[in-house]
Amino acid sequence: MGAKMSENKISENLLEDVNVGIPEEVEKAIIGLSEANNIKELRSTLEAMNPADAASALELLTPEQQVTVFLTLPKDIGAEIFTYVDSDIRVRLVQHIASPGTTDKIRQDFINMFEDLAADDAIDVLDELPANLVEELLSRCTKDRREQLNAILKYPPNSAGSLMTVEYIILPENMTVAGALAQIRRQGKRKETINYCYAVGSGRKLSGVLSLKTILLSDENVLIKDIMTSPVIFAYTHEDQEVVAAKVKKYDLQAIPVVDKEERMVGIITGDDIMDVVEKEDTEDFEKMAAMEPAKDEYMKSGIFVLARNRIKWLIILMVSSTLTGFIITRFNNLLASQVILASFIPMLMDTGGNCGAQVSTLMIRGMAVGDIEPGNWAMVVWKELRVALAVGAALCLANIIRMLLFVKELSLPVVLVVNVTLIIIVVFAKIIGCLLPMAAKQLKFDPALMASPMITTIVDAFALFIYFAVAQRILA
Amino acid sequence: MGAKMSENKISENLLEDVNVGIPEEVEKAIIGLSEANNIKELRSTLEAMNPADAASALELLTPEQQVTVFLTLPKDIGAEIFTYVDSDIRVRLVQHIASPGTTDKIRQDFINMFEDLAADDAIDVLDELPANLVEELLSRCTKDRREQLNAILKYPPNSAGSLMTVEYIILPENMTVAGALAQIRRQGKRKETINYCYAVGSGRKLSGVLSLKTILLSDENVLIKDIMTSPVIFAYTHEDQEVVAAKVKKYDLQAIPVVDKEERMVGIITGDDIMDVVEKEDTEDFEKMAAMEPAKDEYMKSGIFVLARNRIKWLIILMVSSTLTGFIITRFNNLLASQVILASFIPMLMDTGGNCGAQVSTLMIRGMAVGDIEPGNWAMVVWKELRVALAVGAALCLANIIRMLLFVKELSLPVVLVVNVTLIIIVVFAKIIGCLLPMAAKQLKFDPALMASPMITTIVDAFALFIYFAVAQRILA
Repeated sequence: MGAKMSENKISENLLEDVNVGIPEEVEKAIIGLSEANNIKELRSTLEAMNPADAASALELLTPEQQVTVFLTLPKDIGAEIFTYVDSDIRVRLVQHIASPGTTDKIRQDFINMFEDLAADDAIDVLDELPANLVEELLSRCTKDRREQLNAILKYPPNSAGSLMTVEYIILPENMTVAGALAQIRRQGKRKETINYCYAVGSGRKLSGVLSLKTILLSDENVLIKDIMTSPVIFAYTHEDQEVVAAKVKKYDLQAIPVVDKEERMVGIITGDDIMDVVEKEDTEDFEKMAAMEPAKDEYMKSGIFVLARNRIKWLIILMVSSTLTGFIITRFNNLLASQVILASFIPMLMDTGGNCGAQVSTLMIRGMAVGDIEPGNWAMVVWKELRVALAVGAALCLANIIRMLLFVKELSLPVVLVVNVTLIIIVVFAKIIGCLLPMAAKQLKFDPALMASPMITTIVDAFALFIYFAVAQRILA
Repeated sequence: MGAKMSENKISENLLEDVNVGIPEEVEKAIIGLSEANNIKELRSTLEAMNPADAASALELLTPEQQVTVFLTLPKDIGAEIFTYVDSDIRVRLVQHIASPGTTDKIRQDFINMFEDLAADDAIDVLDELPANLVEELLSRCTKDRREQLNAILKYPPNSAGSLMTVEYIILPENMTVAGALAQIRRQGKRKETINYCYAVGSGRKLSGVLSLKTILLSDENVLIKDIMTSPVIFAYTHEDQEVVAAKVKKYDLQAIPVVDKEERMVGIITGDDIMDVVEKEDTEDFEKMAAMEPAKDEYMKSGIFVLARNRIKWLIILMVSSTLTGFIITRFNNLLASQVILASFIPMLMDTGGNCGAQVSTLMIRGMAVGDIEPGNWAMVVWKELRVALAVGAALCLANIIRMLLFVKELSLPVVLVVNVTLIIIVVFAKIIGCLLPMAAKQLKFDPALMASPMITTIVDAFALFIYFAVAQRILA
C-alpha cells in the first residue's frame, strides 16, 4: 500500500513522485508467484490488498492468470476489485465469460457480480467493451438491469445522463425523519451513496437535498421538507459534463442530482466521477493546445497509426499555412541577399514572438476554461496586455542589445536598430493576437484551445517576418 | 440560479458556455438596487439566494455596500456566504472589522462567525489576508481557536497539513455502533463532514474508516472494529498536495485522513479541497508549459508588473539560447547568399519541427502527471515515437511536395530534395527529443513541464537549421 511509504522518502520526492503504486517488494513477490504459477498464493495475496492496489497487481500476471485468479476470488472482493481493473483485463474477462468453454457456475458468478455493480460503474465497463461483448453481457443480465443500463446508454456521450448512477435515495418531502431513517435502513445497502438524500414533491419532482448528517441529527418527528435545503443545484440529463463539473466546483458539491426536462429526479453524479471529468477535460485541452486531436486512449495503449492520425491533421494545416512566410521571404530576397546578416536574426525573432504569443494565449484559454476570464472583458484584457507587452518588450530589447554586443560579429548600429525595433513591434503584436484570438474563438463558439501556441506561432511568424523586412528596408536601404 | 437555465439554451452552448453564473435578470435587479443604495432590499435578495450565488452577487455592489450588506446579514447565512466570497471582499471586511470606528457588536458578530468556520475554510481566509490582518484576526479569537489555526498554519504550503480541517469524528475501535451513533449525534453539529468517521486504537493511532452509512445500517451492538475498513489509505501531514490528490483519485476517495509521523489522526482533507488542488496543479502545468512562472493570483486580479515578471525570465533565457541559431546561420552565410531560395523554407522547417516536438512533449508531460507514463518505459516510448515519426514524416513530405509544386516558383529538383530530406530528419529528431527530455527531467527530479514546447522548439530550431544547411551543402554545393 502506498500509505506505507516512509515520511523521509516522501519529502525527498515532494515535487515529482506523484505515482502511488504498490511497493517494490510486494511487486517482486507477486511477479515471483506469477512465474511459479502459484494461483492459490496469488489469490490470497490479492484478497489481502486494497482493491485499487489489487487491480494494479493483476496487471503483473499473465493473461491466463489474470482470468483464473480473478474468477476464483470471493465474489464481494472480486466485485470491489473489478471497478478498478484496467480495461484490457475487463475485456479479457468478458471474452472468457462469453466463450463456450466456460462453466455455467463461473459465468453465473460473473454475471451476478456485474448485476451488483453500481450503475455508473457498470456503464464504465460497457463503455470499454467492443459492441458484440456489450450485447453478450447485457443479454445475460436480468430484464430490469438491462433496461436500467440501456436507459443510461441512450444519453449522448459526455452528457450528465451518461455519467449518472441511478442508485440514490429519494424521500417524499412530507415524510418524517423517523420514516426517512427507516427507509434509508431498508434501501441503503443497495445504493452506491447515501451521504445525500433527495427530497421529491408530487410526480418525483426534485425539491430539496439533505445530508445524511442532517437527517441523523434532527428530531424524529420533523418533516423532511422542514429540514431540506432548497432550492437545490442540479444538472439536466442532456447537459454537457463540463458544465456539470463547473457547477460542482462552483458550489463545492460532493454529488449533484440529475433531472429530466420536467425536473423529475432520474439520477446522481458522484464526486469521483466529476474528478475524472475534470482530469479528462484538462488532458483534452493540453492535447488541443499542442495541435493534436484529443486521444481516446491512454498513450501507452494507443497504436502507432492512431497516434500518427491524431497529430497529422494540424501539422499539415500549419505547414501549408507557412507557405505565407515563404512568400514573404521570397519577396524580400534582394534585401536578404544584400544584407545576409539579417537572416541570422530570423529564428530569434520568430521564436520570441511565438513564445510571447503562447504565454498570453495559454493564460486566456485556461482562464476561460476555469471561468476567471470572460470574452466580454476583451477591451480590459487588451489594455492590460498592451502595457505588459511594452514592459516585456523593453526588457527583452535590453537583454537583446547586450546579447548582440557580446556574441554577434560585424555589428552595425542600423542592424541593431532594425532588430530591436522589430522585436518590440513583434512582442506587442504577439501579446495582442494571443489574447484576442482565443477570446474571439470562444465568442464565435469555437473551442478556444485551438487558438493556442501552434496557431498563434504561425500567425506571429508571418507577421514578424513582414515587419522585420519592412523595417529593414526603411532603415537599411 | 444557474440551475434555472432552460434545456435548449444549454444544448446550444454545449461546448463553450461552462460558466455558471447568476441569471442576467437577477444581476440587473441587484445592480439596480445597488445604484439606489437600497441596503434593505439587497440584504433580503442575498438572503434568499444560494450562498455561492450570493457571494457572486456581492461583487456587483460598491465596496461600502459590500461591507454594510454583509455585516447585517443573519449570522448563519453570512457564515455560509463568507466561504464563497472573493478574497478582495474578505480583505475589505477584515479591514473594516480591524478599524477603530467599528462598533463592538459588529466586531464580535464577525469574530463569532469566523470562529464557527470549518478550520480549512478559516485557513483559506487567513491565506488570503496580509500578515498584519492575520495577526489582528487571530488575536481576537479564543485561545483554543488560535492554537488550532496556528497549528495548521505551521505546515509548509501545499502540504497535506496545510489543506486539512481538524473537524472530523473519531471513534474508539472498541466502541459499539450504539455508542458511536450517540457520539455522532453529540458531536456532529460542530463537524464539517461526518460522511466518514475514523476509528482509532490506543494513542489516537488511525486504524480504520467507516462511512456513516455503514454505521447506520449496522446492528447497534456490533463493535466499530468489526465493521470498519482497514487498512485505510491516509496522507502524512508533510506530504505534498499533488501526492495526496493522486491517492484520492487512484482510490476514488471522498475524503482522506491525515496523520502525523506516528500515524496518529490529526485531520482530514475533503473532496472539494482536493478538486481545487487538481485544478490549481493543472493550471500551473499549463503556465509552465508556456514558459511562465506559475501565477499566484487569477489573471484579472494580477497587476501589470506581476504579469510581466512571470513571463520575462523564460523569454530572456530562450532568446539568449537562440544565439546558437544565429551562429549556425552566420556560419552558412556564403551558402545562403548563393542560394537565397533556401531562406524561404527556414520558417516552415522550424515551425514544423517545433510543432512535432510540442505534440510529443505535451503527451509525455501530461502522461507522467496523470500517471499513465513512467520514465522507466523510455525505451518503449522512443521505439513507438520513432515509428510514429516515420509515418508522420512521410505524410508531411508528401503534403510538402504538393505544396511546393503548387506555390513555389523557380523550383529545382535538388532544392525539393534538400527540403524534404531535412523535413524527415527534423520530424524524427523532434519526436525523439520531445519524448526523451521530459522523461529525463522527471528522472532527474526536475519538473517535466519545463521541457515543454518553448524549450523543445528552441532546441529543435538549432538542430533543424544545422541539418538543413548541412544537407544543402552536400546536395547543392
